Amino acid sequence: MPDQPKYLQQLNGDLWLIEDERENMKISYRIKEVVFSKSSAFQHVMILDSYDFGRMLVLDGVVQTTSMDGYIYNEMISHIPLSIHPNPKNVLIIGGGDCGAAREAAKYSHVENIDMVEIDEWVVKVCKEYLQEVSGNLSDPRVHFIFDDGIQHVKKYKNHYDVIIVDSSDPIGPAKQLFERSFYQDIYHALKEDGLMVCQSQSPIFHMDVLKQTFGHIQNLFPVTKLYTTTVPTYPGGLWSFTLGSKKYQEIHVNHFDKKTKYVNQAILHSCFNLPEFIQL
Amino acid sequence: MPDQPKYLQQLNGDLWLIEDERENMKISYRIKEVVFSKSSAFQHVMILDSYDFGRMLVLDGVVQTTSMDGYIYNEMISHIPLSIHPNPKNVLIIGGGDCGAAREAAKYSHVENIDMVEIDEWVVKVCKEYLQEVSGNLSDPRVHFIFDDGIQHVKKYKNHYDVIIVDSSDPIGPAKQLFERSFYQDIYHALKEDGLMVCQSQSPIFHMDVLKQTFGHIQNLFPVTKLYTTTVPTYPGGLWSFTLGSKKYQEIHVNHFDKKTKYVNQAILHSCFNLPEFIQL
Repeated sequence: MPDQPKYLQQLNGDLWLIEDERENMKISYRIKEVVFSKSSAFQHVMILDSYDFGRMLVLDGVVQTTSMDGYIYNEMISHIPLSIHPNPKNVLIIGGGDCGAAREAAKYSHVENIDMVEIDEWVVKVCKEYLQEVSGNLSDPRVHFIFDDGIQHVKKYKNHYDVIIVDSSDPIGPAKQLFERSFYQDIYHALKEDGLMVCQSQSPIFHMDVLKQTFGHIQNLFPVTKLYTTTVPTYPGGLWSFTLGSKKYQEIHVNHFDKKTKYVNQAILHSCFNLPEFIQL
Repeated sequence: MPDQPKYLQQLNGDLWLIEDERENMKISYRIKEVVFSKSSAFQHVMILDSYDFGRMLVLDGVVQTTSMDGYIYNEMISHIPLSIHPNPKNVLIIGGGDCGAAREAAKYSHVENIDMVEIDEWVVKVCKEYLQEVSGNLSDPRVHFIFDDGIQHVKKYKNHYDVIIVDSSDPIGPAKQLFERSFYQDIYHALKEDGLMVCQSQSPIFHMDVLKQTFGHIQNLFPVTKLYTTTVPTYPGGLWSFTLGSKKYQEIHVNHFDKKTKYVNQAILHSCFNLPEFIQL
């Protein structure tokens, strides 16, 4: 077992991860084992085995995804855009180092290419090795791993992708620039003329400012902008939002959702767009 | 300020409530002030002022409702049954000491009587005084407070109520019996021949056993049984379930939801019944 990383604490003989991302509310997980721990060039990367959520990917001390609930986020960020675009062939995923979004996208037989641009190769490496419940140890030949800065990657392409999925961590650390207007502008240009994008746009409970700003950026660029939500048990506040920007398509075109999933189904494809009354955009 | 209750801890000069209800996952709240703290005949009752969620009702160290998100739970447990029963006149609320469910039920002008049976008078007293964002300092003359055991109360009535709302705490402590089959049987008999009931049925993430057992009890008694969910940010796992048992009505009859709410709206009345794929009943 590696030395005890600074993000972990011993309490009464047990090991705990106490997330330090919020000043006034903390979520703590009892940990069975530190499976992997290393500082990459970009962040501190851990795989922890927890009692309640199984193995978890933890970046800079913050839980990103878990064996137990990772499918909710990954299915929601993938199947909604891929059920709105009628014929996505060329898909780009920015971030998404846990490989879960790529795994879901690969369930579509008409998707011919999935470019996965992740800045931190170590995240992909450890998720493929130690977090296969989420990554599926992805070996689909249509998935191309590109270890690069997503911001630089999208600048290189014009009129190229059908669907772009921005699966970023929180807007601090390496993901900060993925919430800025210029990035969405580059995404707009990298998409084909009927392309669409989706990004995670944080918590409607705790980050309404980030959510509104992201929605605003996308609304200023795309003719169609839609917000949808889900519940992610390991994210503070539970409720989480995604913003979709589309050049053309706006309705779910799938009539009989037939992918093998644990969260998304035909009814959820539609009802995720029904927002609580307090979310006014 | 009262003495520091045992449920609170000083950490680096700050006061924290660290919920102790789960062995392997804890949620902690930074606290500004202990507004009220007392052991009643039934449980330890606190009103805490927290940084992220405002004032909170805390029973035996577990957060029940908060100024910031209490409306989600209270609107969902009230407006769904009251939008399925076409003409509820006589409503019973069991538990619900924060008065939030009664406050929502009082928004229906055709409701003539609301019996609120709460075992612990202190909960009602402190919520009316110190948690008016949730309780609304309820003074509607249609609301009758009865400080009694809900189990004994329902045994006294046959063919009496249109709608019964079981707003209990977790199935430990004073609420344990509110999850037992005999209780639902008494509820069945206390309802009129076209009556319906709803109860909170715990987390689909952490308490699938309680959820399935509750659903099973109700399904064995009522011709119509339906599950719906919402997100409660201060409950572990975020996702929360409610089970509805009805003798006759099963569809939302409201076409234009016109109550002043912060969470429920016309779309949510319907889409809350769309369950994630992993919830198989």
